[in-house]
Amino acid sequence: MTEMTDAPDAEDLAPPSLDDDNRLTDEFVRLVSEAVDDGDNNLAQELVNPLHNADIADLFELIDEDERAPLAGVLGDLVSADVLAEMNEHVREDLIEVLEPGQIADLTEQLETDDAVAIIEDLDEGEQQAVLAELEPEDRAAIESALTYAEESAGRIMQRDLVAVPEHMNVGQLIDYLREHGDLTTEFWEVYVVDPSHKPVGTCQLSWILRVPRDIAVADIMKREQTLIPVDMDQEEVALRFQKYNLISAAVVNEDGRLIGMITVDDILHIVEDEASEDVLLLSGAGEGDINEPIRDSYKARVRWLIANLATAMVASFVISIFGAAIEQMVALAVLMPIVASIGGNAGTQTMAVSVRALAMNELTRSNTRRIIVREFRIAILNGGTIAILIGIGTALVFANPILGGVIALAMLINIVVAGFAGIFVPVMLERLKQDPALASSVFVTMITDTMGFLAFLGLAVASGLVGF
Amino acid sequence: MTEMTDAPDAEDLAPPSLDDDNRLTDEFVRLVSEAVDDGDNNLAQELVNPLHNADIADLFELIDEDERAPLAGVLGDLVSADVLAEMNEHVREDLIEVLEPGQIADLTEQLETDDAVAIIEDLDEGEQQAVLAELEPEDRAAIESALTYAEESAGRIMQRDLVAVPEHMNVGQLIDYLREHGDLTTEFWEVYVVDPSHKPVGTCQLSWILRVPRDIAVADIMKREQTLIPVDMDQEEVALRFQKYNLISAAVVNEDGRLIGMITVDDILHIVEDEASEDVLLLSGAGEGDINEPIRDSYKARVRWLIANLATAMVASFVISIFGAAIEQMVALAVLMPIVASIGGNAGTQTMAVSVRALAMNELTRSNTRRIIVREFRIAILNGGTIAILIGIGTALVFANPILGGVIALAMLINIVVAGFAGIFVPVMLERLKQDPALASSVFVTMITDTMGFLAFLGLAVASGLVGF
Repeated sequence: MTEMTDAPDAEDLAPPSLDDDNRLTDEFVRLVSEAVDDGDNNLAQELVNPLHNADIADLFELIDEDERAPLAGVLGDLVSADVLAEMNEHVREDLIEVLEPGQIADLTEQLETDDAVAIIEDLDEGEQQAVLAELEPEDRAAIESALTYAEESAGRIMQRDLVAVPEHMNVGQLIDYLREHGDLTTEFWEVYVVDPSHKPVGTCQLSWILRVPRDIAVADIMKREQTLIPVDMDQEEVALRFQKYNLISAAVVNEDGRLIGMITVDDILHIVEDEASEDVLLLSGAGEGDINEPIRDSYKARVRWLIANLATAMVASFVISIFGAAIEQMVALAVLMPIVASIGGNAGTQTMAVSVRALAMNELTRSNTRRIIVREFRIAILNGGTIAILIGIGTALVFANPILGGVIALAMLINIVVAGFAGIFVPVMLERLKQDPALASSVFVTMITDTMGFLAFLGLAVASGLVGF
Repeated sequence: MTEMTDAPDAEDLAPPSLDDDNRLTDEFVRLVSEAVDDGDNNLAQELVNPLHNADIADLFELIDEDERAPLAGVLGDLVSADVLAEMNEHVREDLIEVLEPGQIADLTEQLETDDAVAIIEDLDEGEQQAVLAELEPEDRAAIESALTYAEESAGRIMQRDLVAVPEHMNVGQLIDYLREHGDLTTEFWEVYVVDPSHKPVGTCQLSWILRVPRDIAVADIMKREQTLIPVDMDQEEVALRFQKYNLISAAVVNEDGRLIGMITVDDILHIVEDEASEDVLLLSGAGEGDINEPIRDSYKARVRWLIANLATAMVASFVISIFGAAIEQMVALAVLMPIVASIGGNAGTQTMAVSVRALAMNELTRSNTRRIIVREFRIAILNGGTIAILIGIGTALVFANPILGGVIALAMLINIVVAGFAGIFVPVMLERLKQDPALASSVFVTMITDTMGFLAFLGLAVASGLVGF
């Protein structure tokens, strides 16, 4: 559990603010909210004071929208730059709207470049300029330069403050350098060793520096094999490098290979989470899927996919309409046909989710695509066989019609096998066409399984002579 | 890009092994595979030698299953303990099966406790005992003790090797201690300060130690506010703490509050990825969803959900069967009804994906559930209204039947609103019942939207007098 040993007095006053899952309790949130409503500013501050910055940010996310600005007014300096950096971007945007450019500038100056950029990039153009004008020239230059890189690129998430030393230094000189330069960052985990043209030649973990005598050359303990991040690399790609090579920090280089920044793993943790969440939400057609997103944006993101789904559902409907005469002869077909489509859709979604994740993790490449298709085919045969037997026997018994049982069993098997192929082909093809497989796979796969489900079932019913056409 | 400056000679021989996305190229994998087939062991070793451990692990994952053991034989010592630690667990299990307990013991002794445990916990009981018997007593004790903690708990993923120092040390003494004790771990990013009973009282980043003179007390630069991880905490919970508090490492304590291990962020990165992927795959009913999982296991995981889906689809079918007479009168109902169910299902999945992620990230709590339900209701009204207008007008025109258009529009609106409620109620209820919302939500939500889709559409068709009942 989080020990707040430096604030024992404040803790005595407050009710338990965190539950077993480390979330702010409903009771605590209500207490703060009531204190703000009652104008009891002292109580509100006393309650919030012992909280970690991340929990203060959570508090703003949890209380009602119209209470956020009053709460910020009451808390004053407790809403520090670090609290803003931890806050959900939509909630932060609401809060920042009520601040003056000068106030925003003061807050962002307390942050590292990457966190400051994260706040400023969300402002609209005019506000951005107003805030930038209020910044110290040095900070302004750093942030303006970060903003020249594409969103979600390494250039946006890197810090400019880092420790870079020449190769000829020894450990003693390095330690003296760190002690003497008070203006250096204190947030670093590795030291970069650079050549005279400022190109990285090696990386040195701080623990290695602390473990050897002063007279050892830095060049002798540094690791020469290092992962360099080009400044225009996409953040998702950066996150994959961190995961693959177990990095704590990595040097960012420009086109000339010169060291211009550093990315640390604590920022990557959020990116890994975001990118993985993005896949769940994209697959479901829920857009960004943030519960704090403005309703208007959520509506726009979601309705697009529902309209796309409407179009694909109409294709499936058209298939049914071809067999209208067959359904009039035997209404059981209308009763059973959604089962074939639904389970096929489900099987397709299973394979699709597996493929999309494997593609995102770089595990599914040209080398093993054929093998994975064979693997999915075999699973589809097993799944299709099992479900076909169950539904076939069930249908034959319930409708006292063995031919109908056979028709639905075969249609089920066909649709689950088709679903298996679609679930892997569609994402792989989209990836080869340089599209995001998570974004559009769902629509295509569902269209294929719905259409094939109705076509196979109704078509086989006609072909078997069960109904006329 | 990854620079392998320490192996320039080997690189000259090899074809480009990594593509732009840092994946092993198909060409390279084929070349290695052919060298192994041809018995050209030297070529295979030369090709693989310059690769990073993580890429050697990937190579085993990419080549065909029956080539993995021969490749391991050819590569010999290149398949180091670190390569095994990087490898997908299913692929590793296959390889380890051909090794003797003594060989496995030799390999695991080169690893940190957490990586060694990850390898040994996958072995079956008898093999585990055989490997443990071959280990040095000290390593055996560490691993046996780790295995006493629950799977996926902090005790399994922690390292025992860490640096803990007493409060009275100053920075100079700490540096001397680190220099003199060659047996200490070199993989640490923070030093833990403990009281005489070995309870953590503070944490000190290595950069802070390097920035101050030797005579400063460690107690003066350490951070007292620290996140302590109870040894039995679930790894998902641990990962949330790392994300929330931007941790690089954290102290693990036993029931008495004594420091017994440390967890570092590089291990957390994999857990964040795994847990987030787990949600995508659970939501889709694809089980573990690992492309290297044995087919038998994938079949078992997936067919369960298809059978559950069969049961829920039958409920929807039953609703249709009630309206058999109505469908016989107007076959257009059979043509249109899947649209209502399908789009409702899609809308439900959108809301469900958002709720499941928000629950997993501790963003949806008792404090804001009511507000989020209202939010989803408003989005559902907007989405439902839009789709209802489109499908209503389209149907009225195509079927030249305005009443049918009105019926399907109203049914669509009802189903999308119901989907919105179901998409949030079902996961929240499952969470309050201490179930994993990602695991079972899908089945319930789809059942609700399918059933409601058919019921609303066919029921309204009857109620409107469009067809008799």
